[in-house]
Parts: sequence; C-alpha cells; structure tokens
Amino acid sequence: MTQWKQVQHLEIKFLEQVDHFYDDNFPMEIRQFLADWIENQDWDAASNSESMATVLFHNLLSQLEEQCSQEKMFLQRHNLKRIKQQIEVKYRANPLHMAGVISNCLREERRIIATSSMLEQGPLETSMQN
Amino acid sequence: MTQWKQVQHLEIKFLEQVDHFYDDNFPMEIRQFLADWIENQDWDAASNSESMATVLFHNLLSQLEEQCSQEKMFLQRHNLKRIKQQIEVKYRANPLHMAGVISNCLREERRIIATSSMLEQGPLETSMQN
Repeated sequence: MTQWKQVQHLEIKFLEQVDHFYDDNFPMEIRQFLADWIENQDWDAASNSESMATVLFHNLLSQLEEQCSQEKMFLQRHNLKRIKQQIEVKYRANPLHMAGVISNCLREERRIIATSSMLEQGPLETSMQN
Repeated sequence: MTQWKQVQHLEIKFLEQVDHFYDDNFPMEIRQFLADWIENQDWDAASNSESMATVLFHNLLSQLEEQCSQEKMFLQRHNLKRIKQQIEVKYRANPLHMAGVISNCLREERRIIATSSMLEQGPLETSMQN
C-alpha cells in the first residue's frame, strides 16, 4: 500500500494532523494525483542538491501538466491548472525549498502513521503479555 | 438543467473563460458542491442589501459545514474545510462584497452560455435561410 493510501486509512484525529501541513506550499491535490510519483523520488537528497531539486521541480510541473490534460472533471482540471501556475511562480527561483517542503510532509506523514500504528498495537501487545 | 451543468457542457474555449473568474474570491468548490443552493438565492438583491447579504453569508458557511461533514473523500473534505475558513475570514466584515462577487460570477456564466448558444445556433439559422 502506498504511504498516501495508508494516510487515508488513518483515524480522523490523525487525519486532522495531516490536514494542517497541506496548504498552498504543497497543495494536497499534488499529493493525491501524483501519489506514486511523489513517493518514488528522493526528496531528502533533493533538498540538499540544487541540481536534483531543479530537475524534480521541472518534472513535477510536467507531471501536473499531463495530469491536467487527462483530467475529465472541470473542477479538478481547474484546480490542477491553478496549482501548476502557483507552484511554478513560488518555487522557480528556489526549487530547493520545494524539495524541503515535500520531504518534510512525507516525513510527517510517516511519523503520524507510525504513531497511529503504535497506538493500535499497544493494547494488543499489553494483552499478549498478560 | 442547472446553470452549472450547462457551464460544464460548454466547449473548451468557453470553459477557459469560466476558469478565469473562479479564484480565492469565489472558489469553484463552492460553485460545484452547492450548485443548486447557489442558483436558488437572489445574489443580485443581496449585493444591495447588507442584511440579506449577512444572512446569505452565514447560510453559505452552514452549507459548507454540512457539505464538509458529509464528504467521504479526504482531499475534498480538506479543501472544503480550508475554503470555509478562508471565506469566513475574507467576508465576515463585508458580506455585501461576497454577494457582489457571486452575483457577478453567475452573470458572467449566463453571458458565456448565451454567447456559446448563439454561436451554435448561428450556422443553423444561416443554413435554414438558404
């Protein structure tokens, strides 16, 4: 299961934490529509390498463009188009910042998934010890 | 057919015109998710009446709250929640402005639908005259 699928299976109290770190810096549409692609790039490394971050910035824009051209729903297409323009303006002079933002979001997701799974397993382990 | 359904049946060149007047002042999510409700209110009158605009502002927030609580998709719920907060902050001191924005958008939609339908009917009428 992709990390993003795991996120969407979280309980509401954990989902509310995820809500907080998705805003105009990293719109949730990008996370949702490009979930697999996002998870297959090394954002940690890119947040420390200008050239790698620049390549990922341009690849992200291409992915958004492609997604937008395939999208049938008017509202989603409208959102993807606006998001592509916003991301282009926001990060073209600083793709390292974009890589850092995405790297942080993915790390935060992993932390929340781990906390949730620890809380789920907790009572089970305790009952097994009894 | 609701006006919003008619909009979504427009050709791409007209849809691109519609794209331009939906932004953070009147996010397209509101137009899409509350389409019927939006079309059943008198925004023209509200844009000239502080008390009517205030009632519609609060009703819009309640409608968004309800839509958000019913929404199953995480991304849509996230968007609706953010939009409700943005609209609340943006227009609470000036609901007349909100009514004016919505009234303008609906009027622009009608203008675009009329232009599209005139262009569609044009060649037919010409051919009937021959």
